[in-house]
Amino acid sequence: MVIAVDAVGGDFYPQSPVKGAVQASEKLPDLNLILVGPEDIIEDELSNYDHDSQRIKIQHAPEIIGMNESPAQAVKTKQNSSIVSGLGMHKMGKCDAFVSAGNTGALLAASTFLLGKLKGVSRPTIAAVYPTIQGLRLMMDVGANLEVRSEMYVQFAQMGSIYAHEIMGIEEPKVGLLNVGEEKSKGTEDLKEAYEALAELPNFAGNIEGRDIFDAKADIFLCDGLIGNILLKFGESIPKALKVFFKKGIKNLNLGPEESKVVQQVLKSSLEEFNPDRVGGVPFLGVDGLSMVGHGSSKPRAMKNMILNAAKCLEHNINEKIVASLN
Amino acid sequence: MVIAVDAVGGDFYPQSPVKGAVQASEKLPDLNLILVGPEDIIEDELSNYDHDSQRIKIQHAPEIIGMNESPAQAVKTKQNSSIVSGLGMHKMGKCDAFVSAGNTGALLAASTFLLGKLKGVSRPTIAAVYPTIQGLRLMMDVGANLEVRSEMYVQFAQMGSIYAHEIMGIEEPKVGLLNVGEEKSKGTEDLKEAYEALAELPNFAGNIEGRDIFDAKADIFLCDGLIGNILLKFGESIPKALKVFFKKGIKNLNLGPEESKVVQQVLKSSLEEFNPDRVGGVPFLGVDGLSMVGHGSSKPRAMKNMILNAAKCLEHNINEKIVASLN
Repeated sequence: MVIAVDAVGGDFYPQSPVKGAVQASEKLPDLNLILVGPEDIIEDELSNYDHDSQRIKIQHAPEIIGMNESPAQAVKTKQNSSIVSGLGMHKMGKCDAFVSAGNTGALLAASTFLLGKLKGVSRPTIAAVYPTIQGLRLMMDVGANLEVRSEMYVQFAQMGSIYAHEIMGIEEPKVGLLNVGEEKSKGTEDLKEAYEALAELPNFAGNIEGRDIFDAKADIFLCDGLIGNILLKFGESIPKALKVFFKKGIKNLNLGPEESKVVQQVLKSSLEEFNPDRVGGVPFLGVDGLSMVGHGSSKPRAMKNMILNAAKCLEHNINEKIVASLN
Repeated sequence: MVIAVDAVGGDFYPQSPVKGAVQASEKLPDLNLILVGPEDIIEDELSNYDHDSQRIKIQHAPEIIGMNESPAQAVKTKQNSSIVSGLGMHKMGKCDAFVSAGNTGALLAASTFLLGKLKGVSRPTIAAVYPTIQGLRLMMDVGANLEVRSEMYVQFAQMGSIYAHEIMGIEEPKVGLLNVGEEKSKGTEDLKEAYEALAELPNFAGNIEGRDIFDAKADIFLCDGLIGNILLKFGESIPKALKVFFKKGIKNLNLGPEESKVVQQVLKSSLEEFNPDRVGGVPFLGVDGLSMVGHGSSKPRAMKNMILNAAKCLEHNINEKIVASLN
């Protein structure tokens, strides 16, 4: 199994991707990795770590796509970037997957363009894991498709169900459609149509509301990319905001330093589920290959976990199962 | 000043509205209240409290619109309900405002139908206060208008700005449009159009993202009613979910009963901002009158605060200011 890693993606390259790759390779002895990016930068960083140079190789790609560059433009003009090179290698069969914490838009554009879509897929989608009181669940779409038609919702639900079952270990994932109320008559015309179409799926649990997310009333929270993106970023902001709310609470109650410390420890431990580093990254579902995107702020642990998650997706042949489910 | 109160609205009638009304009347000596609903139910409950019977009167309305009844149908067939009677009294000038914790859809339908719209208003809207690390801010629309056109966003922003300034005490409220990114090129075609239209307002702060809500990067979070409703209910679910996350955290750290108690006290105190009872209710902005809706789960304190909030809206003549701002 060979996984290519974008060595210059995200806010903390080269350290995060290179160190994460070394850690992942220690974890999985059968894993071969290719670090893609400017050779000198990678060599410099890699020399800091004990590693098996037979299993971690470098593929020189001199250009870097910035986090805020216009995706379409960047993919078109930076043919020697880590993203375009890495996905090109994947297309040519030189690796089985490509993972990156880089520019999400550029990754999606390059993945769709270079790898193409799986048979039967109308549009690839980006899903994200979301913390709930019952553990991580899947929210999709979180930004690839701002407007979603009925048949796209159905495919997202099918692809998400396979991912949730195979990779997240959810035995029989239920799909909920985010709406303003539970009744099928609720919502916009688009949502009513989506409800009708989704009702054909055996695991559709009906409409769910905003209050049902944390309760995990469904395992897959289906929504358009506008809603999903807003909810994802809102959810990610919760831990930082809570620290401020808690400072106020600690002050209100006049706690001493010992007690405050305990409270802060509990806060940290309680919100571990919100830490995106635990999962690292999720694949673009629907592309003909395995291209995975992580959070821009990924630390080494996040990169390690994303690589391990990619290995799991390959072991479970999720694309084969998606094609079988759609066709 | 006369405010009519729906005595049979919400999950906890008659206690919440009746007790809340008594408490509000103690707070404001110039306030006259009319409790609207089945006379016997109200009299029974009211007899539990010391009150000034000159200032708290009863208007008999035998029918009750249930929380889950179809709004249009209920308003049409239950002409003797507390909601239709109360708003009818308001229309006839027998009171200056009507407040209810009842069926939001029925209240919106009856308010729009019976009171009509303010001059120049295209569509009335429902706003909600939202907790942030800088205090309460305004989110709108939260469910009255699932699809919003550019000119509606502009009016919502104008109405919300007046409410935020006059009632919430925010000196110069800034308006942010919820989107997937900050750049004006982001989002759906509808959102791009809305951005262009909103840019004409002096207090438009541009697009904001999900992560900007808790930071209060704007004072008014503008969105369509689908997004707003999902975010509102999601936000309301945070305290309950955190209790569960914290139980896990307390267990992970093996805290003793004393320490656990402190943590739970801090949690409660920190999340006081999330308690909808603190504000009680917000008016439908854009109707020609003052009709206020509270949470179905309103306790007496919430009803008291909603009545006080209605009094404040009347004192500040918000409708006059809205009309002046729109025309």
